Amino acid sequence: MKIQEKRIKDNILNIGRIGESEEGINRIAFSKEFIEARNILERKMKSIGLRTKIDGVGNLIGRKQGILNEKIMIGSHLDTVVNGGLLDGNLGVIASLECMMVMDEFNYSPKHTIEIVCFNAEEGSELGGTFGSRAMNGQVLVDEKNKNTLSSYGIDSESINDTINKEKILTFLELHIEQGGILENRSKTIGIVENIVGISRYKITVLGEENHSGTTSMDLRKDALVTASEIIVKVNKIAKLMNPPFVATVGILNVLPNSVSIIPGKVEFIVELRDVGESQILDFMVSIKEYINSFKKNITVEELVTKPHKKLSNKINTIVEDICIENNISYLRMDSGAGHDCKEFVDKTDVGLIFIPSINGKSHCKEEMSNFEDIYTGVQLLLDVLLYIDGEYGGSL
Amino acid sequence: MKIQEKRIKDNILNIGRIGESEEGINRIAFSKEFIEARNILERKMKSIGLRTKIDGVGNLIGRKQGILNEKIMIGSHLDTVVNGGLLDGNLGVIASLECMMVMDEFNYSPKHTIEIVCFNAEEGSELGGTFGSRAMNGQVLVDEKNKNTLSSYGIDSESINDTINKEKILTFLELHIEQGGILENRSKTIGIVENIVGISRYKITVLGEENHSGTTSMDLRKDALVTASEIIVKVNKIAKLMNPPFVATVGILNVLPNSVSIIPGKVEFIVELRDVGESQILDFMVSIKEYINSFKKNITVEELVTKPHKKLSNKINTIVEDICIENNISYLRMDSGAGHDCKEFVDKTDVGLIFIPSINGKSHCKEEMSNFEDIYTGVQLLLDVLLYIDGEYGGSL
Repeated sequence: MKIQEKRIKDNILNIGRIGESEEGINRIAFSKEFIEARNILERKMKSIGLRTKIDGVGNLIGRKQGILNEKIMIGSHLDTVVNGGLLDGNLGVIASLECMMVMDEFNYSPKHTIEIVCFNAEEGSELGGTFGSRAMNGQVLVDEKNKNTLSSYGIDSESINDTINKEKILTFLELHIEQGGILENRSKTIGIVENIVGISRYKITVLGEENHSGTTSMDLRKDALVTASEIIVKVNKIAKLMNPPFVATVGILNVLPNSVSIIPGKVEFIVELRDVGESQILDFMVSIKEYINSFKKNITVEELVTKPHKKLSNKINTIVEDICIENNISYLRMDSGAGHDCKEFVDKTDVGLIFIPSINGKSHCKEEMSNFEDIYTGVQLLLDVLLYIDGEYGGSL
Repeated sequence: MKIQEKRIKDNILNIGRIGESEEGINRIAFSKEFIEARNILERKMKSIGLRTKIDGVGNLIGRKQGILNEKIMIGSHLDTVVNGGLLDGNLGVIASLECMMVMDEFNYSPKHTIEIVCFNAEEGSELGGTFGSRAMNGQVLVDEKNKNTLSSYGIDSESINDTINKEKILTFLELHIEQGGILENRSKTIGIVENIVGISRYKITVLGEENHSGTTSMDLRKDALVTASEIIVKVNKIAKLMNPPFVATVGILNVLPNSVSIIPGKVEFIVELRDVGESQILDFMVSIKEYINSFKKNITVEELVTKPHKKLSNKINTIVEDICIENNISYLRMDSGAGHDCKEFVDKTDVGLIFIPSINGKSHCKEEMSNFEDIYTGVQLLLDVLLYIDGEYGGSL
């Protein structure tokens, strides 16, 4: 069974450009642009006979009943970041739709029930990231703390209960752009994702002494920004000694009082660490804390977030790998530095995540793009894996 | 002739606390608190027979006519920064008033006309720093660029013309707190200021590449904040190799987009350099530009401001020094890292600036304080210098 390239391209552009402006694509979760795109998608699902449902948090599900009730789920999200790009999420949604359209054309009756999902609110917001997929997996509960926020989106206990999946899932598959430059750099067409990194975030606060820049001699200064800069340089140095996919980033930094003639009295910044295990993160923190203590200054380190890494299914990855080899597709087993909807299914079922290269490694911006040849290879691979798992090629999980 | 310590203390506290809040003292230029303080001061001037005038930009002048029309001027400012302290400006104003009160008590008839000045808007604002004293010296002209701003303070060409001094000035004297920690550190009571530093400011813009913190491996990053941090560490290192009073400060720094999961794409910061000559500033800039070029990255350096240093009168400093020696007052010849009203008179007449120590070197904050013993020593010294210059002790300039 063969995908239709022109249809894929048309769908990616028609749905993916909803919310386009000069600064990028804005199809924020719950926005009218998001709902417009989801409505078009729902009509397309219905046109090939899928039973559709919009659940309590705004995820759209298109279902093709199989002989078995046990489900194969495939999908991604349609919401974007502010000033996002064409393919983040949209690719996986359109790829899922294409799989169902091909099955429809070929009158393929799946053994398993197949659900394609267009998630809402995958991108970080006040609801947290991967909100739609977390809700589907029962990880969002209404409590005193989030009650008012959820309510402002029209979400209550009942809608959460309506969203939670209660059926057996055989597997969850997602096709996504890499959003980084590893595949492009290694000239590979497909990334087979083994792990999704864990994330730890630490807030570092350096207290110095606010003083007049002109009247305080160099030897009497306690400049919080100089100390913070030394720490940031060290963070980068240590991170480069670690093995990939370990990364350490200082993305946010604030100087107080941030005035041209005042020696900074306080600098706050967040160090974000990502890796596929705990050991390098622990090693890093030992090293950086040792360095910070060597200053004998007032510097505090506060742990903000620790999310463990998620290991994806090696059974599925072996299937993906075999199909790549069979079809002469170059591939790389790799880790994902970003979270995706599929990671919320890891504790429930076997999960597979397939990457295609991002041009110049760009994402979350209007320049986000992939070669359409790579997109077609990715969608065909997703279809082949889906059919294999459904048993069409004699395979099974 | 001897100053009255209790009267000085009372005046410093009564006038200096106008605008006091929990965060510090707010007696911003042109504010009702500033005007309230200036009104009290004007009444005190009148009570000892001074002829007062509020000029076109809000400076208050109290005049005692001498035998000669040639003037000795002494003064400082009454406006504060936001959340400022008790003594910055206020000390010099009250000290000038005290000199006149002592003369009045002793029925001293000065040879020269003496004017004490309470300046407006010395602290940096949209009008620029030392606004009142610049206007008095004809350095503020109404043009198309500043017309609307000036007009919003009720200032036009006529008020500027009314402000410009047209009389001959024999000398300008100012007593001020040091605002730094040098005198305290060296256990000296008086600072005799030889130069007021020049100021150069450079805006440095580092362009990196904004990217997803999770998906961009350490070796593929162009992190603008890491590069900026390396430059800031280097700025501090080079500055420490220079001779005092050279200082280099990065007080303001902004990260773009400043988001926890995005590698900074752009960092802007301002390097401020202060010194009493050009040569170290030029040396510094050669070194830092060489360092910046070594990155082979997109980093721009833009000159924002260059104000030359101002050399104060050695004739006056010799008089001050002699009086210190005679009275067993410990002193230090030093430079001022901050600008003051008196510097605007340097191109017109002989200028003297006397410092007293700041406790813990603190200024521009509510902790700004000096020992009252040092204050009394400073005021008596100012009076003695004034009388010497007027010829009372047989001296002359």
